[in-house]
Amino acid sequence: MFYIIGLGLCDESDVTVRGLNAIKNSSRVYLEAYTSILMVEKDRLEAFYGRELILADRDVVETQSDEILHNADTEDVSLLVVGDPFGATTHTDIILRARALKIPTRVIHNASIMNAVGASGLQLYNFGQTVSLVFFTETWKPDSFYDRIKENADLGLHTLVLLDIKVKEQSEENLARQVPPYLFEATFSLTLGHRGRKIYEPPRYMNIPQAVSQLIEIESLRRTGTLDPEKTLAVALSRVGGGSQHQRIVAGTLANLSKQAPEVFGEPLHSLVIVGKRLHHLEVEYAEDFAVDKGNWRDVASKVYGCALD
Amino acid sequence: MFYIIGLGLCDESDVTVRGLNAIKNSSRVYLEAYTSILMVEKDRLEAFYGRELILADRDVVETQSDEILHNADTEDVSLLVVGDPFGATTHTDIILRARALKIPTRVIHNASIMNAVGASGLQLYNFGQTVSLVFFTETWKPDSFYDRIKENADLGLHTLVLLDIKVKEQSEENLARQVPPYLFEATFSLTLGHRGRKIYEPPRYMNIPQAVSQLIEIESLRRTGTLDPEKTLAVALSRVGGGSQHQRIVAGTLANLSKQAPEVFGEPLHSLVIVGKRLHHLEVEYAEDFAVDKGNWRDVASKVYGCALD
Repeated sequence: MFYIIGLGLCDESDVTVRGLNAIKNSSRVYLEAYTSILMVEKDRLEAFYGRELILADRDVVETQSDEILHNADTEDVSLLVVGDPFGATTHTDIILRARALKIPTRVIHNASIMNAVGASGLQLYNFGQTVSLVFFTETWKPDSFYDRIKENADLGLHTLVLLDIKVKEQSEENLARQVPPYLFEATFSLTLGHRGRKIYEPPRYMNIPQAVSQLIEIESLRRTGTLDPEKTLAVALSRVGGGSQHQRIVAGTLANLSKQAPEVFGEPLHSLVIVGKRLHHLEVEYAEDFAVDKGNWRDVASKVYGCALD
Repeated sequence: MFYIIGLGLCDESDVTVRGLNAIKNSSRVYLEAYTSILMVEKDRLEAFYGRELILADRDVVETQSDEILHNADTEDVSLLVVGDPFGATTHTDIILRARALKIPTRVIHNASIMNAVGASGLQLYNFGQTVSLVFFTETWKPDSFYDRIKENADLGLHTLVLLDIKVKEQSEENLARQVPPYLFEATFSLTLGHRGRKIYEPPRYMNIPQAVSQLIEIESLRRTGTLDPEKTLAVALSRVGGGSQHQRIVAGTLANLSKQAPEVFGEPLHSLVIVGKRLHHLEVEYAEDFAVDKGNWRDVASKVYGCALD
């Protein structure tokens, strides 16, 4: 059996018991390499699982899946990924490959940002499509996310915005590689300076003030009024579910958020919700606890969004 | 500390290790009553957790939250719910109440249908808003879901449709109680016939052919072409993540699905995805494995949805 096991969003204890049992019974356990960077150290995971882990960087998972799947028709083999396995197109790929090889596959689900975003207090059924926001450069400012946010906003819906990560950037050639949405829950870094191997930069994570700045930059070009620094409410999230020592949820207008120091928003990866006009007073009340300026939060919810608050 | 712990979607082993530890360390553990009906028996959960569980029906969670929260400022108290705690508005309520009482709260996330729907092979970032479909009666056929599906479809997006459950229907008065979306992941049944207490019917779950029939009924009134029995693709899901003995994913046109026996779709709760036109060939290829008529699935994807398939 080939298992793809979601590890959840914070640390080693977010695996499910079903997942843990599968790991313990597997003859080989692969760990998508960025997982150890993103969540906790590989050593810590190994100690927790009582199993040795084989690091598999993205190239291996994408292009050498037969190596991972080797013998999985007769033995149990597990691949561990951050969040839920169906955040990732590449995991669709490897499952399709397993099918072609007639290897039975089981997916073990877990929380991902796509549902844990509910921790903001915003109701999941009021979210529209999810978008990704990539790092702008001087010459390249892809802005299709704006159309998606506008489509959602026109229907009164919230938008989950996944913030970019830059991984495996090469110092010499600086081969900027754009990260599609399915990579959001994952990144990795590989720094090898010897024997002529490629040298990669450490991963870069877009922070919330950078994201807000890019959103406003495109609004200033498009001028549809979809995003207004003073009138659009947003909620930033990181490390959801990790308890007070990790989790950060910060709410406010775009202007409120852009004025905070990046550290206020906790550790990467970050995501941001643009609040839609179909906002319920309970959502306002719940998220108020996370607001940088509670008075302004309520004021905008009431006057701009038309929420009837006490 | 007050914990609200998501149990995931299938059985006792879907709890996370973090969740299991919190349960074991709690002085009281409440189980939303329907959970034991929906997933596994209370006894089995108790044996697995090594802890006695206190059944809390919805009325208790909604209206007597102070009883659950009693002493949670000095002891650990857990409330267990199916799926993820933020499928449920009522859990927002109890967290707000805990806040008012200055009781520290931690939410332990898990998979819910809102992200596990990715198991269909349809990409989560191509989903629009989620809708609920309630049981029609002769005189009451609420159809606002249709507008939501159309809004999504007009943008090319998939729609997750959560199918109704009827709970606590009273035989005598037959006080039909409509179930809002946040109840989707939960239902309960209480049958007490003595000492003048109310008699409830067993819960009823909408099945996939019933859902498709209701969708087509409204389409025949609205006639916008949003839902076409022969041209609209859909994917039905139940018990996602439970492995082959539980999980069912079935794909086809609406007509294909309506012709299947209800048992084909497995055990409740059921959900249905209406496939949007922004469909990628990899999504088609992945879900083809679940299709009742693979040839027709590919044919419609190609000719109606315009997917370039091999």
